Amino acid sequence: MNKQRYAIIGAGALGGLYGGMLARQGFEVHFLLHSDFQHVTEHGLKVESIWGDFHLRDLHVHATAATMPACDVTLVGLKTTQNHLLAELLPPPTRDGGTVLVLQNGLNVEQDSAKVVGPERVFGGCCFLCSNKVGPGHIRHIDHGKIVFGKYFAQASSANSRLDHDESVGQGETAGQGESVGQDESVGKIGQQICDDLNSAGIPTEFSGDLAMVRWRKLLWNIPFNSLSVILNASTKQIMDNPHASAMAESIVNEVHQAAAACGVDIPTKFIETTLEQTRKMAPYDSSMRLDYLNKRPMEAEAILGNPVLAAQKAGYTMQRVEMLYQQLKYIDYSNS
Amino acid sequence: MNKQRYAIIGAGALGGLYGGMLARQGFEVHFLLHSDFQHVTEHGLKVESIWGDFHLRDLHVHATAATMPACDVTLVGLKTTQNHLLAELLPPPTRDGGTVLVLQNGLNVEQDSAKVVGPERVFGGCCFLCSNKVGPGHIRHIDHGKIVFGKYFAQASSANSRLDHDESVGQGETAGQGESVGQDESVGKIGQQICDDLNSAGIPTEFSGDLAMVRWRKLLWNIPFNSLSVILNASTKQIMDNPHASAMAESIVNEVHQAAAACGVDIPTKFIETTLEQTRKMAPYDSSMRLDYLNKRPMEAEAILGNPVLAAQKAGYTMQRVEMLYQQLKYIDYSNS
Repeated sequence: MNKQRYAIIGAGALGGLYGGMLARQGFEVHFLLHSDFQHVTEHGLKVESIWGDFHLRDLHVHATAATMPACDVTLVGLKTTQNHLLAELLPPPTRDGGTVLVLQNGLNVEQDSAKVVGPERVFGGCCFLCSNKVGPGHIRHIDHGKIVFGKYFAQASSANSRLDHDESVGQGETAGQGESVGQDESVGKIGQQICDDLNSAGIPTEFSGDLAMVRWRKLLWNIPFNSLSVILNASTKQIMDNPHASAMAESIVNEVHQAAAACGVDIPTKFIETTLEQTRKMAPYDSSMRLDYLNKRPMEAEAILGNPVLAAQKAGYTMQRVEMLYQQLKYIDYSNS
Repeated sequence: MNKQRYAIIGAGALGGLYGGMLARQGFEVHFLLHSDFQHVTEHGLKVESIWGDFHLRDLHVHATAATMPACDVTLVGLKTTQNHLLAELLPPPTRDGGTVLVLQNGLNVEQDSAKVVGPERVFGGCCFLCSNKVGPGHIRHIDHGKIVFGKYFAQASSANSRLDHDESVGQGETAGQGESVGQDESVGKIGQQICDDLNSAGIPTEFSGDLAMVRWRKLLWNIPFNSLSVILNASTKQIMDNPHASAMAESIVNEVHQAAAACGVDIPTKFIETTLEQTRKMAPYDSSMRLDYLNKRPMEAEAILGNPVLAAQKAGYTMQRVEMLYQQLKYIDYSNS
């Protein structure tokens, strides 16, 4: 069997690293580039990584989606604040029956891709990654990097009701075990193939049967620490070292845990303490939202906070603290623009 | 009957204005001054006020409480962040049987004065005042100015339990009507005398039978708008003009309203909308907390937010939003120092 062909939409800190790793391993990878197109065409893509540095020339780079060939897997690494572009960017590189893997931050962020290509072709995943774009075509990957992904189920993600949600989590679990469930028969195979590809390229990857669990577990960290790092203008270390800020972070983690439960996602309680403990031990770190804020880019407040608040609301739970963080970030976003 | 003799502890925007008004009316007023002592000794006190400008020379000014004579009424206008000084500052100017009127922001702020002179001699009040100290011995009073005050009852303010609290609100109401209630027989008379003095000096003043109601009604505004003006770095106008920030302010006002109810203080519901509507119509205004923040002074987070959170907690109600605002302000206060 030929190797799968990959398209990378959004070749920044995330897409540049993962796309570069795949290309280095011999996969045919097509990068859609915006501001860096000219630079990467001339100088290639330079990656400094804890997994080993490399420099790739003669990549398949595109300044517009229209020139991209049909690919088997389209990896979406754009900021969610750019999702209005997906209707234009996804169709050319995504072949008939091809797969879209949404590696964006937040909850229910797959729905924008699903609207374009249909939900049955969409997978979603979380990257536990510390990586920055430090210059044109220049990625610096400083820590972690694991991808955990799973099949997207529209009903699960839109969380229209508790019942819908529980059903689809069930589907997800089954699919994850590679068993056939009606029309989702091939989900396990497709997921496993992508998982194998990424692992073969040196990217630690796990195919999960429960995307909702994966997303909510990441939100345990993303919601408090992205938000507070901007609102308090503080690093993770500054937050954890201050008794008031760390107590607040803990309250927020607890609220996210309860919201997940209301949405039918029962995160084991130990992950509350794990999240806090790991943050205490982390090197001082600027969250992606803080970097966006400091660089006067729009922040992903909708994806990371607004969507979870909405999902919890629909499940009958009000996230009072997170709703306030969301409102604060929306104001700060507005006044920062 | 001779006019009562007044002592002013904290002769800033508040104490300078009210003390100046009393002195202008012929009351013997003793001002305790700190940084402005030399200036006021040489140049007097200059007040620009919507009630008429005036300039007073030959005031009774003191650099230390020790030189102050025993007074009938000691007016406390210090920032609550300075309350650790009260043990030193209150005894000299407060005569045996004299009264302490605490005009500080927040809830249960009278307890620090009560610890020094005993609760039976303490009154508390709210000033609805826009006034700033714009230079040494120079006060600029730009809007409002009414004082509403009432008898402090230790049990009411410490809110040790719902029952205690309800009882003492009852006492407050009775005292306010000038009726005798055991040892509080003279409360009505004392309060009325102070009220008459202040009114005679041109300061619109109301003697209330329900200090808890007065304090919580002011908190409806003070909690959201002091906090958000610092956390969002925004004026009242900027807050009310932004849909997310104004929705947040409304949620907070509602939470304060519910906390008051839990503490046995049933603020009529219409005041929720009144608070928001008046803020919408206000000229852009920097809250006292924002001025403290901008001038790198400690903020009154304990008095304005911490004490209400604690009082509500004791009454069985968790102020989730306000607790988070409190924690944010404590962090900002710490990083601003």
